[in-house]
Amino acid sequence: MEVQNILHMIGGEGDTSYANNSTIQRTAINKVRPIVEEAILDLYCISFPKKLIMADLGCSSGPNAPLVLSNIIDAISMKCRELNHPLPEFQMFLNDLPGNDFNTIFRSLPGFYEKLKEEKGVDFGLCFVAGVAGSFYGRLFPTRSLHFVHSSYSLHWLSQVPQRLQITLNGGSIYLAKTSPLSVFKAYLAQFQNDFSLFLKLRSEEIVGGGRMVLTLIGKISSDPSNIECCWEPLAQALNDMVIQGVIEQERVDSFNLPYYAPSIHELKDIIETDGSFSLDRLEIIEPGYFKSAQEAAKIVRAITESMLAGHFGEAILDDLFQRYEVVVAEYLSNEKANPIRLVLSMTRKG
Amino acid sequence: MEVQNILHMIGGEGDTSYANNSTIQRTAINKVRPIVEEAILDLYCISFPKKLIMADLGCSSGPNAPLVLSNIIDAISMKCRELNHPLPEFQMFLNDLPGNDFNTIFRSLPGFYEKLKEEKGVDFGLCFVAGVAGSFYGRLFPTRSLHFVHSSYSLHWLSQVPQRLQITLNGGSIYLAKTSPLSVFKAYLAQFQNDFSLFLKLRSEEIVGGGRMVLTLIGKISSDPSNIECCWEPLAQALNDMVIQGVIEQERVDSFNLPYYAPSIHELKDIIETDGSFSLDRLEIIEPGYFKSAQEAAKIVRAITESMLAGHFGEAILDDLFQRYEVVVAEYLSNEKANPIRLVLSMTRKG
Repeated sequence: MEVQNILHMIGGEGDTSYANNSTIQRTAINKVRPIVEEAILDLYCISFPKKLIMADLGCSSGPNAPLVLSNIIDAISMKCRELNHPLPEFQMFLNDLPGNDFNTIFRSLPGFYEKLKEEKGVDFGLCFVAGVAGSFYGRLFPTRSLHFVHSSYSLHWLSQVPQRLQITLNGGSIYLAKTSPLSVFKAYLAQFQNDFSLFLKLRSEEIVGGGRMVLTLIGKISSDPSNIECCWEPLAQALNDMVIQGVIEQERVDSFNLPYYAPSIHELKDIIETDGSFSLDRLEIIEPGYFKSAQEAAKIVRAITESMLAGHFGEAILDDLFQRYEVVVAEYLSNEKANPIRLVLSMTRKG
Repeated sequence: MEVQNILHMIGGEGDTSYANNSTIQRTAINKVRPIVEEAILDLYCISFPKKLIMADLGCSSGPNAPLVLSNIIDAISMKCRELNHPLPEFQMFLNDLPGNDFNTIFRSLPGFYEKLKEEKGVDFGLCFVAGVAGSFYGRLFPTRSLHFVHSSYSLHWLSQVPQRLQITLNGGSIYLAKTSPLSVFKAYLAQFQNDFSLFLKLRSEEIVGGGRMVLTLIGKISSDPSNIECCWEPLAQALNDMVIQGVIEQERVDSFNLPYYAPSIHELKDIIETDGSFSLDRLEIIEPGYFKSAQEAAKIVRAITESMLAGHFGEAILDDLFQRYEVVVAEYLSNEKANPIRLVLSMTRKG
C-alpha cells in the first residue's frame, strides 16, 4: 500500500523554504544524478574552465543541501583523473528563501569539507560554498556569472496564489480539483506560465553562454484538465471535515489556495520555446516517490505545509487537522490517480 | 569619565563571530569610510569593471553587516553620475565563523534591498549579497575572484591561543600584562605573525591584481613590551577576585588565555613586507572608542567574551563575574594606558 508523494514540497509566498522533505528529496536527487552528471561533464569538457560556478535553487536546509555539489565533484574528479587534467575550483551557491535555516547548512559545512578532503585526498583542491537568500523569481546572481544551475522540487511552487483566481469559484478545494471550474485551471496555468517565463528570463541573464541547467519538478503528462491529479485532495477533505464539524469556518477554507502548479510536458516546452534563450536537451519522466504509510504521509505533508497552513488557519488547528489527514490519506494510498509524475529538464543556455 | 573600548570584539577558536559590538563597530566603520571610499574609487576608476566582487571578513550578524556595502554603493554611484557612466553590478560576500547567526543577516536583506531601491531609484541596478561561513585563516573564495576585501575589528583575534605559550608562566593574567614574562610576549607575537602572514597569503590568492584591501584592527604604536595596554586587566582582576574568594579555582584562570593580539605598526609593516604580495598604501591611526559608563562596559564586554568565558569556566559564573567586572572597570575609566589604538591598513594587491 503506497501513495505517491505528491506533497513533499514546501514553499510559496511567506514560506521558509521551497523543499523540505529530505529523504524523498534525496531519492529524487539520486535519480536525477546521471542527468546532472551528463550536463556538468558536457559543460566542463567544452572549455575546461578553471572555476565552476554553480547554484542550487531552493536548496532547503536539510542534509541534502551539499549533496548535489558532492555528486558533481565526484563526476568531475573522475573525468579529470581519466584525462590527467588538474581539478577545477568549485563554487556552489546554495539558495532558498530568506526564512530558510541557513545556519544549519553553514554549521554542517566544516564536516562536509573535512569529508571531501578525506575522500578525495589532500590534493583535492578547493571547494567553496556560499549562501544566497532570496526568491528565484528575482535576480540572485551577477550577469553571466554561473556555469550551472540546479533546482530540485521547487519550481512547482508559484511566486503567489494566482491573483486572477476567483476564490469563490474554487470553494472547498485548496488547489485544482476535478470539480474546479475552467477559470481556476486557467488562472493557475497563467500564473505558472508567468512565473516559469520569469524564471527562465532571470536565469538566462545569470548563466554564461553554453552554461547548463537541470530542473526537477512535479508535473503531469497531459494538459487535459480531466487529467488533474488529486494529490491535495486528502488535505482538502480533512479541512472540509473540520468545516462540517464547525471547527473552522467555510470561508477560511474557501479563501485558502496552494501556490502550486504541476505543469504538463507540453506547457513546459511551450514556455521554454517562447523564452528562446535555452535549448531543451532532455526531458525525462521519473516515477513518483511513495509514502510507506498514512502515518509517514501525515508527518511529511505536515512538515511541508505547516507554515502555510499555520499562516492562514492558525497553529491551533494543526494537530487536529493532521490526525484527520492521516485517516483520510489512507484511502488514497493505492489510488493511481493520486500519483503525479516528476519531470527532469536539462537545458543549455544558447549563445 | 570614559574608558577605551578595547574589548569590543569577539572571536577566537570555537567562537561564534569575530566582532559583536554593533554601536562601537558602526562608529569605527564610519571613521574608516573615507579610506574605504578612496580605495574602492581608485580600484574602480582604473578599469571600470562591470561587476565589483567584494568580501567583508568577520561581518558579525548585527545591523552593520550591509553597512560597508551601502557606503561603497554610495561612493561608486556618485562617481558614476559624475562620469555619466553606467553603474556596475555589486556582489558582496559577508563572511564570519560557521557559528555566526547568518539567518539574522539574511532576514534583514529584503529590507536592505528595498531601502537601496528607494534611495537610489528604480534604475539602481543590481546588488547581490551572499553569506560565506568559515575562518578567514583558511581559503574562502576562488582564486583571483575578489576586487575588494574589507575587515573591521576582527584581525586582532588569533586563530588559536598561542601553543607555545607556557600557561604556567602567565598565571593570573588572561592576556599580556605588565607582569607577563618575555616568553609570553614572544609566544603571542609569534602566533600573530603566523596568523597574519597566513591571512595575507590566502587573500593574495583570492584578490585580483590591482585589487584592494582595507583592514581595521586594534593595535599599538610601539613594539616595546613595556608599552603593553592593560585592556584586559579589569576582566583578569574580576576573575582573580573570584579565585581569592574560592568561587573558581586558580588553575582555571591560569589556563585561560585570550586568543587576542594587538600588533604594533612596526610588526604589521614587517609582516606585510615579508609576504610581499601587497603594497601598503596607507596606515592610519584612529582614536579609540570609549565606554560611557562602567555599566555599558560590562554589558558590551560580556556580549563579546561570553561564549569564550562560558566555554572555559561554565555559564554559571557569568552573572557574578560581570557584577564584579562592573565594579573593577570603573577604576579604569580614566586610565589613558588602557586605551589601545585602532589601526587602518589600506593595501593593493601587486601584479
